[in-house]
Amino acid sequence: MAHKLTKLYPWLSTPAIISAPMLGAATPALAANVSKAGGLGFIAGSTRPEALADTLQQTANLTRTINSSYNRKPNNDTLPVGVGFQLFNTSPSTLTTAFATLPVPPTAVWLFAPTHPSDLTTWSRSIRASTSNKTHIWIQIGTVAEARAAVELASPEVLVIQGSDAGGHGLAKSASIISLLPEVLDMLSSINRRDIPVLAAGGITDGRGVAAALTLGAAGVVMGTRFLAASEAGIAPGWQREITRLADGGVSTTRSTLCDRLKETKGWPARYDGRAAINRGHEDEEGGMSDGENVRLYREELEKGDEAWGASGRMVTYAGTGVGLIRDLKPAAAIVEEVRSQAKEVLERVAGAYGSGRAGAGARL
Amino acid sequence: MAHKLTKLYPWLSTPAIISAPMLGAATPALAANVSKAGGLGFIAGSTRPEALADTLQQTANLTRTINSSYNRKPNNDTLPVGVGFQLFNTSPSTLTTAFATLPVPPTAVWLFAPTHPSDLTTWSRSIRASTSNKTHIWIQIGTVAEARAAVELASPEVLVIQGSDAGGHGLAKSASIISLLPEVLDMLSSINRRDIPVLAAGGITDGRGVAAALTLGAAGVVMGTRFLAASEAGIAPGWQREITRLADGGVSTTRSTLCDRLKETKGWPARYDGRAAINRGHEDEEGGMSDGENVRLYREELEKGDEAWGASGRMVTYAGTGVGLIRDLKPAAAIVEEVRSQAKEVLERVAGAYGSGRAGAGARL
Repeated sequence: MAHKLTKLYPWLSTPAIISAPMLGAATPALAANVSKAGGLGFIAGSTRPEALADTLQQTANLTRTINSSYNRKPNNDTLPVGVGFQLFNTSPSTLTTAFATLPVPPTAVWLFAPTHPSDLTTWSRSIRASTSNKTHIWIQIGTVAEARAAVELASPEVLVIQGSDAGGHGLAKSASIISLLPEVLDMLSSINRRDIPVLAAGGITDGRGVAAALTLGAAGVVMGTRFLAASEAGIAPGWQREITRLADGGVSTTRSTLCDRLKETKGWPARYDGRAAINRGHEDEEGGMSDGENVRLYREELEKGDEAWGASGRMVTYAGTGVGLIRDLKPAAAIVEEVRSQAKEVLERVAGAYGSGRAGAGARL
Repeated sequence: MAHKLTKLYPWLSTPAIISAPMLGAATPALAANVSKAGGLGFIAGSTRPEALADTLQQTANLTRTINSSYNRKPNNDTLPVGVGFQLFNTSPSTLTTAFATLPVPPTAVWLFAPTHPSDLTTWSRSIRASTSNKTHIWIQIGTVAEARAAVELASPEVLVIQGSDAGGHGLAKSASIISLLPEVLDMLSSINRRDIPVLAAGGITDGRGVAAALTLGAAGVVMGTRFLAASEAGIAPGWQREITRLADGGVSTTRSTLCDRLKETKGWPARYDGRAAINRGHEDEEGGMSDGENVRLYREELEKGDEAWGASGRMVTYAGTGVGLIRDLKPAAAIVEEVRSQAKEVLERVAGAYGSGRAGAGARL
């Protein structure tokens, strides 16, 4: 399946490392530098065509050198970055209008959170028609049933399997990738669509997680939280400080709709919530505070800047359970290269210890 | 770390496959056959010394052939099976009284759900003193903080890291093993206790999950739900049928305290709940039904036998998110052997595709 991905994205090195289209955080520089390091970067789509066209143009300017610096066979038909959309608050015409202003469209569009499953059909048709099939359709799912529906409704080039550990928005109820990913692959086999590459997302922050995803059957991984600690991430320093400070991610973060209510974000289909670091807002809610009062305090604290972040702060600090494994900020390219080489080293070492077919490594140790 | 495990348990083949001490389900035959297949089986401890002594004696009778059939160096100091306890409703004297009736004690005692963390110290001291340190202490944890406390309070021989995907009882809030396991290992490194072997539990049902756990750094895995579909499991046929029927485990199961309320089980510390298949009981609760009425209907349905299981039934059907990957019943030994050999095959194949150091396998595919 990695084979299929490098055919689709010829600059890609394996294991394939993809940066998630995180709203605000996934800047043109972050996405471009991930792709330039042999990964695939995503920017987050805007609901306004002009803003989207502008962001894509900035990204195009930053990725001009990709083919020469990575010595890959050129792929001049598309921009070597993708763009992600929340379907419930955007229309396909936002994309097609923006794409029409660019010399080449992005290599992939990532579809997430449709109001109705059939929106996947409308969007994928519209995108494919407007780019003469040059732009690939990626669909993010969180259950086996969603994966099956996505394949039947839109025949995506890539499926992104998001498990319960992921930071930010996702299904309120789902398995982690440990069981979800293999079950999706078995379902794809059963409908003869094992040709679709499947990526793992949720809880992966280093080479150990990447190696685990690959053994589960993934063709590569998507990381979000890890790239929040990239130098290029478009988030507040306070948020970045929290990403490197937080430990024990399963209990220092929680899934809730509180963050949408604090930010007064409307329209998320009811099946979604978001994983974020637990802070004063969560504690006050648990203590019985009304949303009105919690929103008022949140807005008041918005003025405070950096000190509004942290366990006693109120800022919305999206983070996955892998946050406890992130201890430093570094350039996106360094993250990609480090994680990729660690994954290879781990696979080699563990297979050497357990593999049956290698000299000197028996079944017992 | 696998190295350490095979020193502790000389009949063990690697990757190490352990069957969980599931109350009722983990029969002497199940535990014995797992150990005889080169794994390590656990029975579930009773709160009554006589019952515990009887179960251990039965298990001892069933494991007499283990050394000859597996051609391993003998380990005549202990029974080649372990026994697990929920600390909140048992006292250490239950164990020591029962152990005193046996020629040799079980090789390991698995401690879970203490009322106070310091109970881990009391229990481990009592067990070690009563067996002259022959019986090892295993401690099940669900957060990095719990792991650290367990090491400091009881210096266990083995840590079992349970992630959020696990069936049955566990922490209501935790990460999956994808991020929890590496973070626990990093914590152990930081306190110079990386010598303690760490096992992964939660969502693992086949060789892909085992391979993933090993790349995350586990010395082996614990499976519960997979062994519910072992021929030797001591559960109702209706429950077993559900284990092979259920799909999409992240949404067909849920975490809740409902099952304890239906069974009127008292005393679980507030931080625990249990993952079970969603059925009529859950739906009625969501629809506003009182516990009293739900319990009444549950008790009524207990009389119905096999048909009381299933989506429209009310029986308590503990299952992890990996349940969708389980499609058949088979003997425990066949499960152990199949999962172990699949794990090796997966590691070998994936490392061959990605590993940097092997002939013919480059970084790109």
